[in-house]
Amino acid sequence: MAKAASKSNVGQALAIGIDIGGTGTKFGIVDRDGNVLFSGEISTKKHSDVNTFIDELHDALSELIDKAGGIGRMKGMGVGAPNGNYYTGTIEYAPNLPWKGIIPLAKMIEHKFKLPVTLTNDANAAAIGEMMYGAAKGMRDFIMITLGTGVGSGIVANGKLIYGHDGFAGELGHTIVIPDGRIHKGTGKKGSLESYASATGVTLTAIEMLKKSKEDSLLRKVPEDKLDSKAVYDAAIQGDRLALDIFEFTGKILGLALANAVMFSSPEAIVLFGGLTKAGDLILKPTREHMEENLIQVFQNKVKILVSHLKEADAAILGASALVWEMK
Amino acid sequence: MAKAASKSNVGQALAIGIDIGGTGTKFGIVDRDGNVLFSGEISTKKHSDVNTFIDELHDALSELIDKAGGIGRMKGMGVGAPNGNYYTGTIEYAPNLPWKGIIPLAKMIEHKFKLPVTLTNDANAAAIGEMMYGAAKGMRDFIMITLGTGVGSGIVANGKLIYGHDGFAGELGHTIVIPDGRIHKGTGKKGSLESYASATGVTLTAIEMLKKSKEDSLLRKVPEDKLDSKAVYDAAIQGDRLALDIFEFTGKILGLALANAVMFSSPEAIVLFGGLTKAGDLILKPTREHMEENLIQVFQNKVKILVSHLKEADAAILGASALVWEMK
Repeated sequence: MAKAASKSNVGQALAIGIDIGGTGTKFGIVDRDGNVLFSGEISTKKHSDVNTFIDELHDALSELIDKAGGIGRMKGMGVGAPNGNYYTGTIEYAPNLPWKGIIPLAKMIEHKFKLPVTLTNDANAAAIGEMMYGAAKGMRDFIMITLGTGVGSGIVANGKLIYGHDGFAGELGHTIVIPDGRIHKGTGKKGSLESYASATGVTLTAIEMLKKSKEDSLLRKVPEDKLDSKAVYDAAIQGDRLALDIFEFTGKILGLALANAVMFSSPEAIVLFGGLTKAGDLILKPTREHMEENLIQVFQNKVKILVSHLKEADAAILGASALVWEMK
Repeated sequence: MAKAASKSNVGQALAIGIDIGGTGTKFGIVDRDGNVLFSGEISTKKHSDVNTFIDELHDALSELIDKAGGIGRMKGMGVGAPNGNYYTGTIEYAPNLPWKGIIPLAKMIEHKFKLPVTLTNDANAAAIGEMMYGAAKGMRDFIMITLGTGVGSGIVANGKLIYGHDGFAGELGHTIVIPDGRIHKGTGKKGSLESYASATGVTLTAIEMLKKSKEDSLLRKVPEDKLDSKAVYDAAIQGDRLALDIFEFTGKILGLALANAVMFSSPEAIVLFGGLTKAGDLILKPTREHMEENLIQVFQNKVKILVSHLKEADAAILGASALVWEMK
């Protein structure tokens, strides 16, 4: 695939996509048709200093750039990052990243690579990727929700991504679904969607439920640091009651949040992406049920819940790279 | 004012604005500068049959049209109505209106008046009015929230109203803020913003608090059918503890809903309109405090909460009439 694509694109401009997550940073070189020609990954977490992060990113990416025909073929770089600001190119107070305060990341990367850089929220980038290459192709109104280390979202209305007045729109993960609910360690806020429907959230739900219930469960044998949505899934497909309850509980909260989002911007579809979606109907069924249950009649049985069909490794890179084709 | 405006606009095209509320329907004839030249009101509530409603509307409006120079000067009619669908011109399953199911209102009015009709959600119309003539003039990202019999909203992002894929976006009043909270009689849903922050909601809060508390209160002398935000305001400015608590409670819930809306579309301002806003800082202060409290850092101390400065009688008519100038 990579070979064929690179063959047919000799001399054509390419885009670099970088997706910065709380744990790792993925990057790749992408052609206009959405083929990820080369890709790689480094750790985000281990770099408490953003400068050493950029140094490692530069080393790793330079290799790929050489393979792809050199810097001259690169039209630019697109970056998706938590709390990324499209207007200013900064990352501001990102609760899930090791760098605190305001980081002028676009400028720093631009300076290092000598290429034009556009930056946005990681979930916004994913939404653009879905709109250009994925499940939301051709849609003018949809919401992208990423269920990963955190919960991110990108909202498209009237065919355009909503950045908001300050560039930070789309933080559905931080909306409060359970007032005075579970505390979010990163933000200090109580009851946000992210504190329940993220990887960390599902683990916390599992720990809480195991403590509260006296029921036997396969999950009691899983060490706490392995207790993630994958482990819960493995138990649930074997009919484990407690594991099923964890998905039901998570779906109830996610479904409520989706209903609220639907009544806000009335999208044609909600595209879900990320680890939690791998549980398939175990999570989708309760999510869909509770979404419908909380919708007023006029919105019922209208909104599709879709799971992104882009390869997980590619989707974030694709989305970030798509920003490059929108550059002027 | 009306005289001067009509003088300077002789022969110019005029627009008719109609605002349909749960209780009453306001209408008026408006020039391009936003002067309401003539206006009137009929009851919505008493017409269980939409046909007799349109008959009465026609009688009342025809008089105004004659006064304003005849039907030939009217460019068209704009209608704001709960659950109004911009794309189809229908009102669908509006919980606060006497007409159930799907009503093809735009076509019915068009047929009766022989004028082109555009219809949208009443709060969407109000948002357009604020954008053209009011507090949101020049803003590209803001949210309009109407706190009346119900709670409506109109969301503007990237300079455009969000209608959503089906024309029904902006139902912030029906988003769930307190899961399993107070039941909404119209929708059957529990814990929606409207069940707390509407006129009915404030009355219910007052009744509940009077029952639950043993504290003395001026409100104990108010008959239940007079127990509205005005009565609570009158008591609160005299220092009545229970009345102050009612506003604090309402502001806590409204503030939470505003925080969620801000984290969704990151508006420059939220424009509030309607009866509840007359309580001024008694409601605005707790609303603002609880909004800020629930926002993650990146959104804090950025978003203005504004109160519409359009005359209450004019604002809805202005907004509806503004739809006419957008007609092709």
